[in-house]
Amino acid sequence: MNISMVIYTLGWVIKVEGACLLLPCIIAGIYQEREGVVYLICALLFLLIGFLMTYKRPEHDEIYTKEGMVTVAGSWIVLSLFGAIPFVATGEFSHYIDALFEIASGFTTTGASIRRNVENLCHCTLFWRSFSHWIGGMGVLIFVLMLIPGKSGSLMHLMRAESPGYDVTKIVPRIRETAKILYKIYMTLTLIEMLLLIVFRMPWFDAVCLTFGTAGTGGFGVLNSSCAAYSTTQQIIITVFMALFGINFAFFYLIRTKKVGAALKMEEVRFYAGILIFAALLIGIDTAYLYRTAQETLLNSFFTAVSIMTTTGFSVCDFNMWPVLSKYVLILLMCIGACAGSTGGGMKVSRFIVYFKENRRTLRSYLHQRGKYKIRIDGKALEESTIHTINRFLLLYVAVFAISVFVLSFDRFNFETNFSAVAATLNNIGPGLASVGPTSNYAGFSVISKLTLIFDMIAGRLELFPMLLLFYPGTWKRSV
Amino acid sequence: MNISMVIYTLGWVIKVEGACLLLPCIIAGIYQEREGVVYLICALLFLLIGFLMTYKRPEHDEIYTKEGMVTVAGSWIVLSLFGAIPFVATGEFSHYIDALFEIASGFTTTGASIRRNVENLCHCTLFWRSFSHWIGGMGVLIFVLMLIPGKSGSLMHLMRAESPGYDVTKIVPRIRETAKILYKIYMTLTLIEMLLLIVFRMPWFDAVCLTFGTAGTGGFGVLNSSCAAYSTTQQIIITVFMALFGINFAFFYLIRTKKVGAALKMEEVRFYAGILIFAALLIGIDTAYLYRTAQETLLNSFFTAVSIMTTTGFSVCDFNMWPVLSKYVLILLMCIGACAGSTGGGMKVSRFIVYFKENRRTLRSYLHQRGKYKIRIDGKALEESTIHTINRFLLLYVAVFAISVFVLSFDRFNFETNFSAVAATLNNIGPGLASVGPTSNYAGFSVISKLTLIFDMIAGRLELFPMLLLFYPGTWKRSV
Repeated sequence: MNISMVIYTLGWVIKVEGACLLLPCIIAGIYQEREGVVYLICALLFLLIGFLMTYKRPEHDEIYTKEGMVTVAGSWIVLSLFGAIPFVATGEFSHYIDALFEIASGFTTTGASIRRNVENLCHCTLFWRSFSHWIGGMGVLIFVLMLIPGKSGSLMHLMRAESPGYDVTKIVPRIRETAKILYKIYMTLTLIEMLLLIVFRMPWFDAVCLTFGTAGTGGFGVLNSSCAAYSTTQQIIITVFMALFGINFAFFYLIRTKKVGAALKMEEVRFYAGILIFAALLIGIDTAYLYRTAQETLLNSFFTAVSIMTTTGFSVCDFNMWPVLSKYVLILLMCIGACAGSTGGGMKVSRFIVYFKENRRTLRSYLHQRGKYKIRIDGKALEESTIHTINRFLLLYVAVFAISVFVLSFDRFNFETNFSAVAATLNNIGPGLASVGPTSNYAGFSVISKLTLIFDMIAGRLELFPMLLLFYPGTWKRSV
Repeated sequence: MNISMVIYTLGWVIKVEGACLLLPCIIAGIYQEREGVVYLICALLFLLIGFLMTYKRPEHDEIYTKEGMVTVAGSWIVLSLFGAIPFVATGEFSHYIDALFEIASGFTTTGASIRRNVENLCHCTLFWRSFSHWIGGMGVLIFVLMLIPGKSGSLMHLMRAESPGYDVTKIVPRIRETAKILYKIYMTLTLIEMLLLIVFRMPWFDAVCLTFGTAGTGGFGVLNSSCAAYSTTQQIIITVFMALFGINFAFFYLIRTKKVGAALKMEEVRFYAGILIFAALLIGIDTAYLYRTAQETLLNSFFTAVSIMTTTGFSVCDFNMWPVLSKYVLILLMCIGACAGSTGGGMKVSRFIVYFKENRRTLRSYLHQRGKYKIRIDGKALEESTIHTINRFLLLYVAVFAISVFVLSFDRFNFETNFSAVAATLNNIGPGLASVGPTSNYAGFSVISKLTLIFDMIAGRLELFPMLLLFYPGTWKRSV
């Protein structure tokens, strides 16, 4: 294990976090909030610690798969451990574990909250919560890696461990270039949404925070009612942008380079759109009796379906009151999640397509034993090893899910609460059902359950392996 | 598709079912019940139909994988369709679909009931319900195949499709011999349990029916309270025999041939015992506050854990009233199920072991990329193709589970009911939780939900593939 390189990278992460914390200070300046001083002290402290840790670059900067995994998991844990400090220091969170839950929920773009009331938080804290979504949406390390010089081989191991999706889409051959293109798309979409919301008369602070929540597919809002209080037009804008941020970013790159035909043919995008529309319509029919007009029904069903499938977690209505069919559809959407290569979580549409095709192939294999079917996506045959990796990922996913529900069962909540709490954190959604529904929060769980859910959030964001390896004893055995 | 051979085999199944129906007639004779006439007419009718269908043996008797699968699935459906007729003909079930649910639940050894009150059923119907467990426990075709002459190659395809477990344990090289040995073990254990229960003063009719339910890991009782009204000793006897019938029968063969050491080393049996004891103790601790004495607590927890893990489904207490941790442990036990090569259902302990080891291997593969780990069971390395097949089975299992819950969600029940109803039928347990708990029944579901659950019962009993292939359109396309 190349420990010095791990520490060096963690130092950079802390340094970047310190720099990010300067933004809430500006917000505090605008609103003349005294809590800004706390944020400023934290920012300077983190910058200092970061500089000390990165003072000397290690001689050997090679990073292999194992170190890559551990570094990425460690970075996200360190990011959360440090990021929670201002919450406690301002006195707005009385327990450190609650602050940790809140900021881990932010960085992993989960959006699950401990707070019943967010409207009494100061602006700089609200901003930091929402900004953490935006940082976490694209990934911290991918940003850090653009800053520090290093060999592309090592970078690849880190990027592979952090990026969503079963395979990093190499948009262009050079990884640094790919990262820049992705960030450019991310920034552009963010700015457009922000401007649109402001043009349609949302207060600028709300517009900025909600855009961060949408872009990172996070879900923290600034009002207790999440998005229910905004105008219909504003809600429609948010729906559209949630859907856009759930699409594989390769789609936008194809559009920008004027390959519209190729973009529209992307199988993952088609499946994504198809599932989304089908689910929203089904929910609409199922819940029509609850609302007065067809417009209200459709807005609620589309907003919620998009919010859940993209793993954002904003809400415009209390979907916990919906009939069981709609609630079950939401749970299925939670598990499928957004496209690979987007900022969304879940197991990803591309894996779902492979899962679907693999099941069909399993049945077919009994019909024509000699035929060897290839699984194709966008016309290209997948390697068998890729399919096995996806199968193993899904099996591991089920295991993490089952064990997490087991740990939560020691608390006093019911089956639906535990099941949906794990679904909502492991897939980085935010609100679940029953006692963790959109009008409730996660404050009632025990410390052990909260730690489990924090683990699930980070494991879900990093697609299981980095976190599982960090806690797997074999990782820390000396290799013979 | 060799249709004539499929029909010929189905004919044999109907003939054997007709012969089996003569037993309830004897019971009716003993208790002087008029319903016996109905059973006698059905028996003679089925024998006649069976003889007509098997009048001429087809010239080509080759059966390949595809025909094997379709034949097995068809046999179980035909068995249920015919077996339900007496229930309706006696007037004890007013709807055919309910009778079908009840007898499919019997043959598949599920034990899920439509009836609130079973004590007002006549003895011959109660006997037929319980006897269907005993027939279904070991498998119908394996019995039919011992009767009709045929090539071993064809037999293998049928037996493989019907027998529980990921791989038919070839106890001895010749398949017909293996079948005979298995039946001998089955009969011996059945007789011992029956005698023990009678010796310890259970009424003989109850003893016979409950033994059938135990041996087939079915779960139909003859009292509304299932096993709660029996004495402690009788409950202990049932617990022990449920546990025994959940063990891989190869274990008993090794014991009988005096290879006790090899038997005790069987990894599957060790895991099975370990999981069972751990789960029962955990439930005991969790539910201790509900019962007066430690003895009562332990009897309830062990009886229930054994009953659920072996997928029998007898109950001595209303475990639906247990705290959520215990209920969740029961759901996990439902899914793991009994040993392969036993009469129990579920995904099977051996598959669970492979699942466990495969997950560990997935993590390890990131640590030492060059190392190729083999997964071993009982010291023998498994073929990679076997592991892939198990992985695919588990993935398909999750899909069938998720889709079934989806269909049930159209009814008015809650999440826990739907989820546990599917778990209880797909794994052939019987009672679930909430509205389908041990003191409730499945009568409230819609016809579509009942058909889905019947599908799940048969699909679960036959380990998915035969039933899925029967309903997969590609099976019925003409091969090019």
